[in-house]
Amino acid sequence: MNQTLFFKNRIAVRSRASMVGPKEGKGPLAEYFDVIMPDDLLGKPSWEQAESEMVRRTVLMCAEKGGLPAESISVVLAGDLLNQLMSSGFAARELGTPFFGLYGACSTFVEGLVLGSVLIDGGYRENAVCAASSHFCTAERQFRFPLELGTQRPPAAQWTATAAGAMLLDARKENAPAYVTHGTIGRVIDYQITDASHMGAAMAPAVADTIMAHFQDTKRDFRDYDLIATGDLGWIGRNLLKELLIQRGVKVDDEKLFDCGANLFYQEQDPHAGGSGCGCVASVTCGYLMKLMEQRDVRRLLVVGSGAMLSTTSQQQGESIPGIAYAACLEGE
Amino acid sequence: MNQTLFFKNRIAVRSRASMVGPKEGKGPLAEYFDVIMPDDLLGKPSWEQAESEMVRRTVLMCAEKGGLPAESISVVLAGDLLNQLMSSGFAARELGTPFFGLYGACSTFVEGLVLGSVLIDGGYRENAVCAASSHFCTAERQFRFPLELGTQRPPAAQWTATAAGAMLLDARKENAPAYVTHGTIGRVIDYQITDASHMGAAMAPAVADTIMAHFQDTKRDFRDYDLIATGDLGWIGRNLLKELLIQRGVKVDDEKLFDCGANLFYQEQDPHAGGSGCGCVASVTCGYLMKLMEQRDVRRLLVVGSGAMLSTTSQQQGESIPGIAYAACLEGE
Repeated sequence: MNQTLFFKNRIAVRSRASMVGPKEGKGPLAEYFDVIMPDDLLGKPSWEQAESEMVRRTVLMCAEKGGLPAESISVVLAGDLLNQLMSSGFAARELGTPFFGLYGACSTFVEGLVLGSVLIDGGYRENAVCAASSHFCTAERQFRFPLELGTQRPPAAQWTATAAGAMLLDARKENAPAYVTHGTIGRVIDYQITDASHMGAAMAPAVADTIMAHFQDTKRDFRDYDLIATGDLGWIGRNLLKELLIQRGVKVDDEKLFDCGANLFYQEQDPHAGGSGCGCVASVTCGYLMKLMEQRDVRRLLVVGSGAMLSTTSQQQGESIPGIAYAACLEGE
Repeated sequence: MNQTLFFKNRIAVRSRASMVGPKEGKGPLAEYFDVIMPDDLLGKPSWEQAESEMVRRTVLMCAEKGGLPAESISVVLAGDLLNQLMSSGFAARELGTPFFGLYGACSTFVEGLVLGSVLIDGGYRENAVCAASSHFCTAERQFRFPLELGTQRPPAAQWTATAAGAMLLDARKENAPAYVTHGTIGRVIDYQITDASHMGAAMAPAVADTIMAHFQDTKRDFRDYDLIATGDLGWIGRNLLKELLIQRGVKVDDEKLFDCGANLFYQEQDPHAGGSGCGCVASVTCGYLMKLMEQRDVRRLLVVGSGAMLSTTSQQQGESIPGIAYAACLEGE
């Protein structure tokens, strides 16, 4: 089954913006983010409202960096981890733009890149802002425990990033640092992981499935890419992915396999298996990875966003945790 | 700001399927649904798993009615009301197809129709199944109260439909009863309604906004349509929509304004202001409205799905309830 879309026209990355929380702002990628928040609240009375404000500001910052007036944004595609997309929905209310709400758990940013590219490549929209966010405090209390409990985190747990990223795609931009050339749609894959603190293991099979589909559809392999950046598998998931790809006969080039979650924090920051959350792959792509493309250190990049499709209800009902992953290929001139 | 997409190619409705619960199966539209469930559980141990099973069966029934083997489905676009799209996500796991998860609250089905049409019109996918679901028991306990409490419902409340609908779009089908010709992307609109039992009032302004955008972009008005079917405004929202359109100078033809939610139940069934839920507009469009198009009683239909972007968290934090609406134009030969 073919899962990859080939874009006929040039879909330029016109601009990109990222915003992260204080902890992420002390990590190894700190210098690449546009804004490091001084605290978790941005002056708002709740973490959820702060996350929504992050989305709003990041989208507007992205448009401004691209020289696009906010009222000229053709469409915003966005999503987050909160029930009923609270962060993105309320941000879209403030923005007033045409809006598609997406949910692919932590893969949402790349899901948006694929659909945003389709809207531009087909000539339906002049531009599109693709955005995603997560917030440690909103995600933890929704999916796991109230923060006030101070629950101890197991070693396989990942730290939900307080972060947002936005990318402005535009058909008309010349001399862009990167163009979206392919998008691969994911399938929901379940390897029967049931531990909600073991997200890397839950998502790695879906990432392997999407990368395999992308390679098959495009007749490419690791040699065709300078970097394959996975969403937020963390260290455990990243190494599981490597095993899964080798099992399937892929020649994995370990140095080209970069995981956004595994690289967001220093180990001394105690993230355990690494960072996670919709905002992780979004901010690292819009911050660090796009910088590599601008510097031409990376000429061809495959970004693979991965999501774990669990909810508190599915967990309480004893369901396992399926994963999904979307991939987008970004190429320089 | 232009919000409407014009489709250049013929995007045919190849088939459609619908499945409803026992209460919906005693309503005025009962004869138009493919399957009326004997109970709310479909043999599953939880209502959530039953809702997921509804999605799976409806998608497969739709493909089968269209003569398409399940493994030839190019993509499924689906969503529901549950946190983290539990129904659609787990259905997609069983289906194994490429999958886009969408969230537009009760507007999700039409959001999917718009994006599915884009994927086909642009030549990215051969076919697409657009689906959405809701379940009275899963939605009530998630958004409001445990059903066991027997909480009294206020008069403005709507009854979340236990229903799923799926539509198979296909570029190659000849002599289809309907083709998708336009899609209008909604904006998030907030008139500061705070009562979670007054969804019609929360959503009507977004529906008015999208219909106005559609009329402006296409230079059409009520005279160009045989029927304008809104998602699930219920009786109160439907009449508010009429007022809002008249305020904006639109010549409203009352007989052409049909609301799926207002027509799903008999008043004696005690639905109060009418039906609601993602499955409402999905099942009524895929059941009743498509039948009208097949019979050529309706030659040009505008379906406007509407969603209320609330969550329990946003309600608890005192936020108002914004709405969003997407529109799709379906035309016969």
